[in-house]
Amino acid sequence: MKTRAAVAWKAGQPLEVTEVNLDGPREGEVLVEIKATGICHTDEFTLSGADPEGLFPAILGHEGAGVVVDTGPGVTSVKKGDHVIPLYTPECRECDYCLNPKTNLCQSIRTTQGQGLMPDGTSRFTTLDGDPILHYMGTSTFSNYTVLPEIALAKIRPDAPFDKVCYIGCGVTTGVGAVINTAKAEPGCRAVVFGLGGIGLNVIQGLRLIGADQIVGVDLNPAKREMAERFGMTDFVNPAEVEGDLVPYLVNLTKGGADYTFDATGNVQVMRTALECAHKGWGESIIIGVAPSGAEIATRPFQLVTGRTWKGTAFGGARGRTDVPKIVDWYMQGKIEIDPMITHTLTLDDINTGFDLMHAGESIRSVVVY
Amino acid sequence: MKTRAAVAWKAGQPLEVTEVNLDGPREGEVLVEIKATGICHTDEFTLSGADPEGLFPAILGHEGAGVVVDTGPGVTSVKKGDHVIPLYTPECRECDYCLNPKTNLCQSIRTTQGQGLMPDGTSRFTTLDGDPILHYMGTSTFSNYTVLPEIALAKIRPDAPFDKVCYIGCGVTTGVGAVINTAKAEPGCRAVVFGLGGIGLNVIQGLRLIGADQIVGVDLNPAKREMAERFGMTDFVNPAEVEGDLVPYLVNLTKGGADYTFDATGNVQVMRTALECAHKGWGESIIIGVAPSGAEIATRPFQLVTGRTWKGTAFGGARGRTDVPKIVDWYMQGKIEIDPMITHTLTLDDINTGFDLMHAGESIRSVVVY
Repeated sequence: MKTRAAVAWKAGQPLEVTEVNLDGPREGEVLVEIKATGICHTDEFTLSGADPEGLFPAILGHEGAGVVVDTGPGVTSVKKGDHVIPLYTPECRECDYCLNPKTNLCQSIRTTQGQGLMPDGTSRFTTLDGDPILHYMGTSTFSNYTVLPEIALAKIRPDAPFDKVCYIGCGVTTGVGAVINTAKAEPGCRAVVFGLGGIGLNVIQGLRLIGADQIVGVDLNPAKREMAERFGMTDFVNPAEVEGDLVPYLVNLTKGGADYTFDATGNVQVMRTALECAHKGWGESIIIGVAPSGAEIATRPFQLVTGRTWKGTAFGGARGRTDVPKIVDWYMQGKIEIDPMITHTLTLDDINTGFDLMHAGESIRSVVVY
Repeated sequence: MKTRAAVAWKAGQPLEVTEVNLDGPREGEVLVEIKATGICHTDEFTLSGADPEGLFPAILGHEGAGVVVDTGPGVTSVKKGDHVIPLYTPECRECDYCLNPKTNLCQSIRTTQGQGLMPDGTSRFTTLDGDPILHYMGTSTFSNYTVLPEIALAKIRPDAPFDKVCYIGCGVTTGVGAVINTAKAEPGCRAVVFGLGGIGLNVIQGLRLIGADQIVGVDLNPAKREMAERFGMTDFVNPAEVEGDLVPYLVNLTKGGADYTFDATGNVQVMRTALECAHKGWGESIIIGVAPSGAEIATRPFQLVTGRTWKGTAFGGARGRTDVPKIVDWYMQGKIEIDPMITHTLTLDDINTGFDLMHAGESIRSVVVY
């Protein structure tokens, strides 16, 4: 079949919206009509050429929601008409990782996914001339129709709006999950969140959800304050307005250090600050942001020997097929909010505008509705 | 009263064994006759001058065992004749740290202890001329008699031999506790231990105690192999004999990475290797060794984002008054071994020989018996 898609021909170029060929689903695969997709910094990271593992030409996009149109042989967990969210971190429930309760990093199709291919080692996308186009993160939601492995689809309730819950495919789950699954933060805790963008706001609402007592937000942009307060931030700190070192300032503000700190900036210096303002004895710092290639974090080992823990999280520690439907429920029940974070809604033809808005810092999330 | 003690007059000089004055115990304090004391690398670290917080003149020593001789007003938890192990990490059971199950770092007397003083801000030790001599780590076990706060004494069973269980005052608890309290390692795990000295051997026997499946020991000195195997090491790796990078070698040896890794070297490059050979998704690396002043650990944040956790431990995460008596029981029951690690027994007059043996790498533990 043919489908409209935004193709990334090479790094550093705008996407081209065009028609491409899409082969039908093979064994264990599912054809999905994407109804909406968010535009995430990770798409931008790859498109810019900064991602050393980026491959081209490819169809980007990993934060979508849609409807099952067709299923390949052997597919049992979803059927035509089911509403689904694509998962760039699949959940096979059979590999050593899925069977270890300490991790969500299913490895069953990691190699082919990293190569831009379906699990059988081929791509379903080609140009109209028959040249191959690669998948991206196993999802390629910048295409109106896409093919995914069955294990990379979370089945969600049919009454959830696609143009909002698509954000649960990455940003919401990453932020809320970092609090719930990785930190396992408890009611009454004090926390500091560095970076009040699309991920940081979701960390903040995750902390509100679990009943944190103090939620400090740190950002150089004072315009971020209002939205962060709406999602539960109790204290705003602009490092540019702090005299002296930020660490003792934050330790003092949190009465001795935060129980949990979260980096949602990707800046390795900020990651160090986040660790060091965690509470002596028990504070945990969680890295969410993706650092530039080759950048390193550093600290004195004394920081760890005196009881701080340094962790990271990917996809919020969530097991997608199990956890994503629950987060969709929480949104529908009003336990978490998404609507105010979807600042821009675009058509596929305008997808490059979404990247422009991101560069300008004007959007929290732009969503393409097909 | 007068007591014989080994005094550290200044950094870089041998200890002088001499008579000093010792004031009796004040409110909440206890006079203890030290029967035996180990000589630990931390004593050497301070004596050498490398410890930026080292103060002189002082009476060093923090790994002792002895008998209560007298108690000051208000002391209720120990009485004359009780056998005790001094605790450089006290356990007041009242401060915010003692009341938080995530840490053992009781802070109730930290400030005065760091200044070489008892909690009332004075020292009990003076020269025969009346000049003050400082306490060290709140314990000063290089004195035949010493005064300690009540909260810094673990009461132990009376049939335990002083010249062995003194080692539980630091090295044994630090190593075994890192496994049990900090890593909370579980049966069947795979582990790598870097550094097969007095701490590393205790990590190894802690891993044996909890039923680890694989216990890899890493040391540049092949002479360490035999003793480590005696304590439960299953695989020995000499980095000098490994071609290429050590990390992939250890990942391969542990079938994908270790569930737990422990640094008992104090070398920040080794700490990085220890983190990076931990298993993707769930591996935890625990820093035990004390690094040189100003040295920093570093890694790519990707190592944490893909599921590794970096932690540290002090006194093995043990709460001394609660946990040390249990470890003494385990020794008496044969669950852990200590005797083969006490390689040298000395008199107080020969205490400098203990430091010489440490420098020469000939001892695991030298113990002074009074």
